[in-house]
Amino acid sequence: MERIESHACHGGRQEVWSHTATTLGCTMRFGVYLPPQAEREDCPVLYWLSGLTCTEQNFITKAGAQRYAAEHGLILVAPDTSPRGDGVPDAEGYDLGQGAGFYLNATRPKWAGHFRMYDYVVEELPALVDAHFPTGSARGISGHSMGGHGALTIALKNPGRYRSVSAFSPIAAPSQSPWGEKAFSAYLGDDREAWKAWDATALVAGARERLPLLIDQGDADEFLVPQLKPELLRIACEVAGHPLQLRIRSGYDHSYYFIASFIGEHIAHHAAALRG
Amino acid sequence: MERIESHACHGGRQEVWSHTATTLGCTMRFGVYLPPQAEREDCPVLYWLSGLTCTEQNFITKAGAQRYAAEHGLILVAPDTSPRGDGVPDAEGYDLGQGAGFYLNATRPKWAGHFRMYDYVVEELPALVDAHFPTGSARGISGHSMGGHGALTIALKNPGRYRSVSAFSPIAAPSQSPWGEKAFSAYLGDDREAWKAWDATALVAGARERLPLLIDQGDADEFLVPQLKPELLRIACEVAGHPLQLRIRSGYDHSYYFIASFIGEHIAHHAAALRG
Repeated sequence: MERIESHACHGGRQEVWSHTATTLGCTMRFGVYLPPQAEREDCPVLYWLSGLTCTEQNFITKAGAQRYAAEHGLILVAPDTSPRGDGVPDAEGYDLGQGAGFYLNATRPKWAGHFRMYDYVVEELPALVDAHFPTGSARGISGHSMGGHGALTIALKNPGRYRSVSAFSPIAAPSQSPWGEKAFSAYLGDDREAWKAWDATALVAGARERLPLLIDQGDADEFLVPQLKPELLRIACEVAGHPLQLRIRSGYDHSYYFIASFIGEHIAHHAAALRG
Repeated sequence: MERIESHACHGGRQEVWSHTATTLGCTMRFGVYLPPQAEREDCPVLYWLSGLTCTEQNFITKAGAQRYAAEHGLILVAPDTSPRGDGVPDAEGYDLGQGAGFYLNATRPKWAGHFRMYDYVVEELPALVDAHFPTGSARGISGHSMGGHGALTIALKNPGRYRSVSAFSPIAAPSQSPWGEKAFSAYLGDDREAWKAWDATALVAGARERLPLLIDQGDADEFLVPQLKPELLRIACEVAGHPLQLRIRSGYDHSYYFIASFIGEHIAHHAAALRG
């Protein structure tokens, strides 16, 4: 593990670390924000999963989350969105391959050797983070767009592992979204039954824990109708009796300006669960 | 004038506009944040001048200033750092030419036709902003590094025009800094007397208005000793009896993580003067 950035920020430190990810077979970077409270006590961790094309940099430079994490005493961990590097397979387009890991474990031969972001985010990264930073046992997870899909599916698939989950503009029903269909076909193959294990709208019916889902979605988001489809997740939650708070925000788009506007409310939501 | 970006943000709107700048002989972009208050009343304007290599994007995406501007009802205007384009002269290196306008009016033949960022920021841009947005008469000015130099010198040279001024990590004595010496030699020539009109430390002695200077500076800033030299400005202010609050922040560096940590305090400082 090598620290490649370290900046004082809101009384704590914003760092970027590099390490060899055995799950992914490549070098990976992640951002970690250590609030001032971490100098004297263990702090809960909020994992943030970013969207298509993002690296570990987008959230840490654009969301303005550190201010709120410092207020509430949360550690923030923001990984990259896929394996990277010359030995890692890739594809044309921003929505498949490097920068587009979709937080699943690929099964198709081209991708299965490296594209295991689910195992990385659920197992390898938390083990590394817990070994190197003053973390408590409480974890939350959040994310944006493809990363919102990641946060929701990971929380739904791992009852008891996360105390809180939220998402901004998630790909809420990827099996019914062009982005999801392209990625799932490539990573998982054409059997749509296999896709259900990676689709929040499909997973809700079988969820073994009623962890409340908090989602913010802008109504001026250009991807809302063709790609994101939170209304399908809302119906699935109503059918399953799964608690969902879906807030439609008037005038907001898909950008980090939207995330920055409401990340404080999300961090307060996670802090209430993680420190409550 | 053409609006090329518009995003809802903290209840207001973050926009980016493009226009033909007659002062600079090129197309220029600037960011403008309109707080929610601007929908119903005129609001004071805080101008933000960015540092070397920056465009209009850095401040609007990384500083997290919109939250505070929305709280206080300030419009934020963030121009690019130099003229740009194929017809505009440039130089090798990040610290001269495009991206490095130094907020002065160049006099050397190579640069004088386009590099007039002082006139642009002091005259052309405010006239444009006041014509198109619901601005009140009160203006403040702030900036970072090269832009901190710009904010301080512009305020000192224009008594009565700005009600408040502040800076992060400014090039406080550019005539005694390698960055400043390189730029002033190129833009103004070798006569160091001519440089004094563009150097905050030199200007303080003749300032006709005792506008208080607020400066934040990190003590872990790699550029502090070789380039920034706020201690020279402090001495000049003591000699001249000019009010200066210079706050040295332990552990902070030159990055936007530093700006994001304290921009709230600067915006509160400006709001007190502009709305008080």
